[in-house]
Amino acid sequence: MSTAGSSKHGAPVTMRDVARLSGVSVSTVSHVVNDKPGARIGKDARRRVQEAVEQLGYRPNVLAKTLSRGTSAFIGLVADEIATTPFAGQIIHGAQDEAWKHGFVLLVANTDGNAAVEDDAIAMMLEHQVRGILYSSWYHREISVPEALHQTDTILVDCFAHGSGLPAVVPDEEQGGRTATEELLAHGHRRIAFLNTTTPSPAQTGRLAGYRSALEAAGIGFDPALVLPVAPDQGGGYAGTSHVVDSGASAVFCHNDRVAMGVYDGLRERGLRIPDDVAVIGFDNQDVIAAHLRPTLSTVALPHYELGAAGVRMLLGVDPAPDDEPRLVACPPVLRHSV
Amino acid sequence: MSTAGSSKHGAPVTMRDVARLSGVSVSTVSHVVNDKPGARIGKDARRRVQEAVEQLGYRPNVLAKTLSRGTSAFIGLVADEIATTPFAGQIIHGAQDEAWKHGFVLLVANTDGNAAVEDDAIAMMLEHQVRGILYSSWYHREISVPEALHQTDTILVDCFAHGSGLPAVVPDEEQGGRTATEELLAHGHRRIAFLNTTTPSPAQTGRLAGYRSALEAAGIGFDPALVLPVAPDQGGGYAGTSHVVDSGASAVFCHNDRVAMGVYDGLRERGLRIPDDVAVIGFDNQDVIAAHLRPTLSTVALPHYELGAAGVRMLLGVDPAPDDEPRLVACPPVLRHSV
Repeated sequence: MSTAGSSKHGAPVTMRDVARLSGVSVSTVSHVVNDKPGARIGKDARRRVQEAVEQLGYRPNVLAKTLSRGTSAFIGLVADEIATTPFAGQIIHGAQDEAWKHGFVLLVANTDGNAAVEDDAIAMMLEHQVRGILYSSWYHREISVPEALHQTDTILVDCFAHGSGLPAVVPDEEQGGRTATEELLAHGHRRIAFLNTTTPSPAQTGRLAGYRSALEAAGIGFDPALVLPVAPDQGGGYAGTSHVVDSGASAVFCHNDRVAMGVYDGLRERGLRIPDDVAVIGFDNQDVIAAHLRPTLSTVALPHYELGAAGVRMLLGVDPAPDDEPRLVACPPVLRHSV
Repeated sequence: MSTAGSSKHGAPVTMRDVARLSGVSVSTVSHVVNDKPGARIGKDARRRVQEAVEQLGYRPNVLAKTLSRGTSAFIGLVADEIATTPFAGQIIHGAQDEAWKHGFVLLVANTDGNAAVEDDAIAMMLEHQVRGILYSSWYHREISVPEALHQTDTILVDCFAHGSGLPAVVPDEEQGGRTATEELLAHGHRRIAFLNTTTPSPAQTGRLAGYRSALEAAGIGFDPALVLPVAPDQGGGYAGTSHVVDSGASAVFCHNDRVAMGVYDGLRERGLRIPDDVAVIGFDNQDVIAAHLRPTLSTVALPHYELGAAGVRMLLGVDPAPDDEPRLVACPPVLRHSV
């Protein structure tokens, strides 16, 4: 699209484009285009704004533009628990940055996983003629797709629904598990325990598969006695510490940073030092924990920001949307002092 | 307002109102009102939807309605760091719930505290003819008001700007500090240390004032030797532990939960038990820490959800907006096992 009034991505020219071109503040542009009484704007600034408006084909009322185009410059983001986890926020952040880059605005709805609220949120977004919807979960899982999502372009973010035909983008759990295990192997550990989660999930199976494949690549046989499923929090890690110690492992890969925090307490009570006696690696890179344990925790990051950004790119056709298996986003290592 | 097509708060009737009245799903309403080809909707459901549309005065295009009214059913929320703190998310949550209750939709922008991004975000919201803007900070502080905010109704949430004329809603830091100290006093402690923050802020002065007033009310003189400012994180708490122990205090009030987490490590290294040897209380109720330390941490909660909800109520005139001092929201105690 290259009609006047649209940027190269088909999104409308905005007040900030006008401000940039004319070298004045957005506030000044607003005064000029809305012809506010009482605003003291210099003749020169007023002229520059008017020239920029003309040059860019800017129309002050974005909603009027939307009506004439039939779709808005909104992208919807439906999230189950943005607000109650420090994690999902980064999905919003990545989606917002990428949406803005292409001239779109994000409409965010937090549903707490409540189906009625979700229905309301999707209806609201359809009424606002969104370009499409990102439907996201605060943890990687298979979902059932709300019926109304089929009425617009939808991308699943941090979740997937086999057979739904909806493109999805999720973290590469297997690569993440391999990365964590490789970090322990690189420090000479051969007997590596794994405190996995008891919760069935792609994270449970994927991280285990990565742990196994890293061991196999290093010529170390898989020993099921070294793997213990625990509750995926501090209590689970604390309770699982005895198993780690009894197994004779010199290192432990924890399903997440909260489990690792519990293991720290368990090892400390036994007078064992990290990493000298037992090396510990986590998963998630939950900053308030990982960066502040003593010693600071080496871990693998969940790529939440990138999941949000990739979802927007897929929705807008900047990146191709896979129609079969979910697209995988890599989980990078974050190395600190526990290995 | 009581014209057809508007709810009692002046917000438009939505697709979900139609769905509720006609007893069908939002998806079905969407099919009927948009007359989608290929949709198989029963005659009875179609009739009920059409009756509800007529009865409620529903018009399918919310953007057209907005144009005809001159203001939209949007409320803007500009936040500096929603995504990078687990806290600010609850402000969004509270604002969203309250906005929806009154038929408004929240437009959220995360600015990372970047002035140019903030300017863009406010411009976007003005272009969408928002009913008003909540301008929020991830921690309670005085801000300078971006010029463009004066072009619409604005409420400051978790921040304030003396002399700006903008209404504000903030946590009651002094009451929070008093509550924390009273909890320690109630358990018989008389010599109570306070690890305050080194960062000048309303939290620093307010919590200290609350600590002093609780002591005074209990007939205990203020001893400046018991107060030590530390970095407001785990490292600060860890470093401050020796001061607490050397002071002979039997209890410590920590500026926040992260400081308390550092104190736990410091006390444990000295072989001191919580709460038997030293009782500990935090501030913030940062769940991933407070609910999972060993023992779990008693603390005082920051009322983020309520700040967001109160901001929307003040913006919509449901609650009166103070035009002088910020409105204070209470910080409730959250009692666990460290006192």
